[in-house]
Amino acid sequence: MTDNRPCVPWDMMNAFMIDVFKAYGVPEADAAICADVLLESDRRGIESHGCNRFKPIYLDRIDNGTLLPETKLEILKETPTTLVMDAHDGMGMVASYRMMERLIEKAKQVGMAGGAICNSTHYGIAGYWTDMAAKEGMIGITGTNARPSVAPTWGVEPMMGTNPMTFTLPTDEEFPFTFDCATSIMQNGKIEFYERSGKETPAGVVITEDGGTMTDSGEILRQMRGGHCALLPLGGMGEEMSGYKGYGFTTIVEILSSALTGGPFMQALSGKNPDGSNRMYHLGHFFFVINPEFFMGLDVFKKTAGEICRQLRASKKMPGAERIYTAGEKEWIIRQERKEKGVPVNESIQKELTGLRDRFGLPYVFPFEK
Amino acid sequence: MTDNRPCVPWDMMNAFMIDVFKAYGVPEADAAICADVLLESDRRGIESHGCNRFKPIYLDRIDNGTLLPETKLEILKETPTTLVMDAHDGMGMVASYRMMERLIEKAKQVGMAGGAICNSTHYGIAGYWTDMAAKEGMIGITGTNARPSVAPTWGVEPMMGTNPMTFTLPTDEEFPFTFDCATSIMQNGKIEFYERSGKETPAGVVITEDGGTMTDSGEILRQMRGGHCALLPLGGMGEEMSGYKGYGFTTIVEILSSALTGGPFMQALSGKNPDGSNRMYHLGHFFFVINPEFFMGLDVFKKTAGEICRQLRASKKMPGAERIYTAGEKEWIIRQERKEKGVPVNESIQKELTGLRDRFGLPYVFPFEK
Repeated sequence: MTDNRPCVPWDMMNAFMIDVFKAYGVPEADAAICADVLLESDRRGIESHGCNRFKPIYLDRIDNGTLLPETKLEILKETPTTLVMDAHDGMGMVASYRMMERLIEKAKQVGMAGGAICNSTHYGIAGYWTDMAAKEGMIGITGTNARPSVAPTWGVEPMMGTNPMTFTLPTDEEFPFTFDCATSIMQNGKIEFYERSGKETPAGVVITEDGGTMTDSGEILRQMRGGHCALLPLGGMGEEMSGYKGYGFTTIVEILSSALTGGPFMQALSGKNPDGSNRMYHLGHFFFVINPEFFMGLDVFKKTAGEICRQLRASKKMPGAERIYTAGEKEWIIRQERKEKGVPVNESIQKELTGLRDRFGLPYVFPFEK
Repeated sequence: MTDNRPCVPWDMMNAFMIDVFKAYGVPEADAAICADVLLESDRRGIESHGCNRFKPIYLDRIDNGTLLPETKLEILKETPTTLVMDAHDGMGMVASYRMMERLIEKAKQVGMAGGAICNSTHYGIAGYWTDMAAKEGMIGITGTNARPSVAPTWGVEPMMGTNPMTFTLPTDEEFPFTFDCATSIMQNGKIEFYERSGKETPAGVVITEDGGTMTDSGEILRQMRGGHCALLPLGGMGEEMSGYKGYGFTTIVEILSSALTGGPFMQALSGKNPDGSNRMYHLGHFFFVINPEFFMGLDVFKKTAGEICRQLRASKKMPGAERIYTAGEKEWIIRQERKEKGVPVNESIQKELTGLRDRFGLPYVFPFEK
């Protein structure tokens, strides 16, 4: 599938996003963090979490008052191995960056560190945080709760978020093992992608109130907004294919995201008051950093992890399968391909970019305008 | 389904297993640990890992020299937060017990602790180890590698173990949230159960060499022994229902089980030499303990975790669904039911018990003999 979308050079997009964030009141250093997290998502081809979200999920929420541009981090508790912070409804990406910086420092000193944040907002791709640990030669683990959309096994009500449980493990290869996925079969972005592509959603991805499934992607999204259908956990409906395992993983993330801080959870995270008006999201995230130097050493860890990945890729394939990947590899391949090209932007994103440029009178001329 | 199997009182079975382990050369304190781990599995109704395995997986392996009755634990590295041990092919349950005792002590002191064991053997139910942490008011996490039986996404070769990724989270309820599952859709024991029950295995649980699936449970077990079919990771074949997520979890456990110690992995864990003769298993396990008192406190953690479980159970059910469970709840219900009854033993286990009793001239008369 060739990609005919025009591209914007990374540097230009980065500078532009920082300028716009600043215009919205985000301090410059914080704006640089947020722009990098969003663009890292596009670099990896995770377009559901990239510059497509710049306006609707971040800027519009600053506008409507559910996201504060200044992140006033409060330390609720700190020990040599742990850190608990309240983000006071500021930028989740800024809070997470500051958290990971400190946890990495702690894990360098004492081998392991863990942290949790309450009253936060969307923290971008979870893999950004765990990769920060891997860049320093450490194992990173994170998860976050989110707007309720996943039903428990034998249930039909959207109770939990798509709750990623994310790991980065350092390897001796050019890229680490980065496993960054929702614990539901799919997250909303994938169904939106099916809708835009005119495709049906596979049966068994969502559950309806009467315990059935649906495949009309547009209809799923409409029903989902009203809370009339829910996403199913990894493993699917019921217990036959072990859907209770995905349900278990989703619940673990829900618990760790709130119980370490005492923050809110599940249906309290809808972002809506009972009267339908907006309210603060109050999300929670957790983070762990483990230093292999306090086990048998980073080199031993990297070599073993790399060898496992290589042997998996070299194992016998299904007839017709092109190749076997390991986690993070596809994203790394896309990252290489996009390095010179820049970030691809479709028409709706182009309009958002020029609209923001004009609103703030910023001196940018995008390549797609020429 | 009524259970007509005769039962043996817990105390009697425990004393008997300790006596037999001792007759096999296991020191008394170690024998007590192993008996308790195996019986805890039966108490929870996880009969695939209970006294059914006493003879074939433990005693017979001591007999054939692939499991040493004395566990000579060597500390390879220790810091205030971490511990790495070599079990030298002794009892994996003994090594894991000693590991968890020390990690709990460390986490009491410093808030977090992690450990890994190499050259170990089967460590019983993973949930035993994480529950040890929860009994002390802490979060427990563990995983282990195992004999290769799971294929990577787009692969057909059995490369990785069924690799449980297990968590126990303390709650304010009578039982903790104990999530103890293989990261494949099913483990072998479930397919053995289908075979004994004369049932087919659901399509999509295993993959054949030609990329198809099979449902004849007996045939699956035969093909599996020859390496001609493999179990599929949670999420199933290919990527449509996100099988790559289960594959990712399985790989994370495979990496953490070996890379923290530098121990062997994947196909090196077959227990067989190229000539078909037995060899040592050399399994690896990892363990993490997190102390909520170093976050916002145990009471806050337990209350939040318990409340999440209660709200999940109270959420709207599928039509026809009897109820919604949370992880560990079914096992806890069975545990209550079996408390007075004792451990149910089928005919083949009865024969193993009387055979062992007679071999060692032990003074036990089992209820099923009367």
